[in-house]
Amino acid sequence: MRATIIYKAGDVRVEDVPDASIINQSDAIVRVTRACICGSDLWPYKDMPPTLTGRKMGHEAIGVVEAVGSEVNKVKKGDFVVMPFAFSDGQCTFCHEGLTTSCIQGGFFGYSEGVGGAQAEAIRIPLADGTLFVLPLREDNALVASLLTLSDVMATGHHAALTAKVGPGKKVAVVGDGAVGLCGVIAAKRLGADQIILLGRHPNRIALAKEFGATDIVSQRGEEAVERVLKLSGGYGVHCVLESVGTEEAMLTAVSITRPGGAVGRVGVPHYSTIPAWEPTFYKNITISGGPAAVRAYIAELLPDVIEGRIQPGRVFDQIIGLDSVPDGYRAMDKREAIKVMVKP
Amino acid sequence: MRATIIYKAGDVRVEDVPDASIINQSDAIVRVTRACICGSDLWPYKDMPPTLTGRKMGHEAIGVVEAVGSEVNKVKKGDFVVMPFAFSDGQCTFCHEGLTTSCIQGGFFGYSEGVGGAQAEAIRIPLADGTLFVLPLREDNALVASLLTLSDVMATGHHAALTAKVGPGKKVAVVGDGAVGLCGVIAAKRLGADQIILLGRHPNRIALAKEFGATDIVSQRGEEAVERVLKLSGGYGVHCVLESVGTEEAMLTAVSITRPGGAVGRVGVPHYSTIPAWEPTFYKNITISGGPAAVRAYIAELLPDVIEGRIQPGRVFDQIIGLDSVPDGYRAMDKREAIKVMVKP
Repeated sequence: MRATIIYKAGDVRVEDVPDASIINQSDAIVRVTRACICGSDLWPYKDMPPTLTGRKMGHEAIGVVEAVGSEVNKVKKGDFVVMPFAFSDGQCTFCHEGLTTSCIQGGFFGYSEGVGGAQAEAIRIPLADGTLFVLPLREDNALVASLLTLSDVMATGHHAALTAKVGPGKKVAVVGDGAVGLCGVIAAKRLGADQIILLGRHPNRIALAKEFGATDIVSQRGEEAVERVLKLSGGYGVHCVLESVGTEEAMLTAVSITRPGGAVGRVGVPHYSTIPAWEPTFYKNITISGGPAAVRAYIAELLPDVIEGRIQPGRVFDQIIGLDSVPDGYRAMDKREAIKVMVKP
Repeated sequence: MRATIIYKAGDVRVEDVPDASIINQSDAIVRVTRACICGSDLWPYKDMPPTLTGRKMGHEAIGVVEAVGSEVNKVKKGDFVVMPFAFSDGQCTFCHEGLTTSCIQGGFFGYSEGVGGAQAEAIRIPLADGTLFVLPLREDNALVASLLTLSDVMATGHHAALTAKVGPGKKVAVVGDGAVGLCGVIAAKRLGADQIILLGRHPNRIALAKEFGATDIVSQRGEEAVERVLKLSGGYGVHCVLESVGTEEAMLTAVSITRPGGAVGRVGVPHYSTIPAWEPTFYKNITISGGPAAVRAYIAELLPDVIEGRIQPGRVFDQIIGLDSVPDGYRAMDKREAIKVMVKP
């Protein structure tokens, strides 16, 4: 089968690899009907040192179950499923608490040893019963794009909003206008935010953010951005900040625009090593939370809104490519020519 | 009147200063019946550069109102009051939200410009109506020591517990066996914690912690302490960590012993500049919260438990001295000869 492998920064290839196959009897094989490229895939695309064996890429997909191991009971051949970016057994103490990304047996697609990537024709799903969410829909339906976002970005935006304590009447800022930031706008609106300030600079993304519910746009950076948000939010900052970038500058902006007693939900994979411990976090009693989104635990909550059309996160996809064009997709996202690229193997 | 002034590290003096007097009509003058020395007072005692004018010390007291300005309506001469370590107007948006340490007009005793310290015969209280909590007791009563802790340490331990999300059934660790850590043990037990692990090394403090409700003691440090807490808590760490020290080592221990999805409530004034952004905080979805305790907002909740004897935080005081002996009190606390020193002017 064909699958995407990155060998070093800038060097993404689609190659022939052995077909995905059952290894453990708790596995399933999913034929990928849609995958996509994630903002976090751009980090190795920017800075990965050269390797001989490469790394299999992709951690977001929807697809159809092709085969299941003998221990798989809940998922069956032919099911149309969402694959969350992390696999999890659904049985352990953390899965029961809804923190599926900390599953004791779990791991991450495209990262954990021996687990393939989703930018491929098919993928082996460990712990299939716990991991896969069976959709109550047929494979060919008009909601495919939005369903695909339940694999990561929409659920990640929701996680950012939850950990930033978004609720009715809150003033919210979203740092970053990537697909996760845009889904963060959807999530903040869905949870009842009163004001949603998007910090971003790209006209097409800003336009989409406004349609999703952003009430204000701040296109400045650094100190200027901080001043602008403080002014827009009445002088003291916002209650809730969704940090969807993962750079040091973004994190500093996030804590600087948080109101005393407010919270930052960070979901941008951190490419910074530290968070300021003193000013402005301590004296302002700012809460810093977030991490990898427990996607598997959120799908049941978000799915009805997708099915009934109340949210349309699939609109973040602005390019659709075939599997062999995946390297072009990385280039387009890296150059900010695309918000998010969908892959149709 | 006599008041305590620190001029440089190790140089604390009790001197004659002008009597505390009304400056603004919203002020009150409180005759200090009991003050005390705080663990945070030891930071300037350790590292303050020399100054000519010095800094007035003390931010914890109970006392009797001697005079009030013409705009003071709720507090009157003769009232027996608690003075929280921060002053606040009780009117602004942050006071209404219960975050009195972020009061728009507020500040901190012993720090804010023009505001004196409580290790003195008397002190001027700005914004007296918002700041002072009038006690429903006479000045000479058996609860004096515990009432004094409502000025800071007991309320700060409570803040650590709240921001670390302590609740029924939770596994809790308290980093630090100082007076705040010991009050953190009281707070954790009061909020229903199932397991309370104290990280501390001093036999007398450990003994008191056990009486307050600590179920386990960890006297190791660094990696060894982390391993021990993980083992005691069933392998994954505790849900809630109360960080009451404020050093980098303490904070690293705190985040390392937090269970995935758990929270750190930090109340030790940070003498470290950064918090690790990546491991172990991000992947484990750890929440970091805390800051200066909103003492004024907590007194009403804690007071009934003090009055009815359900909690006895006053037991953290193990030395009582007169005002002129305050320099000896600093030495005793700095050398860990005293847990917390009460000052009776």
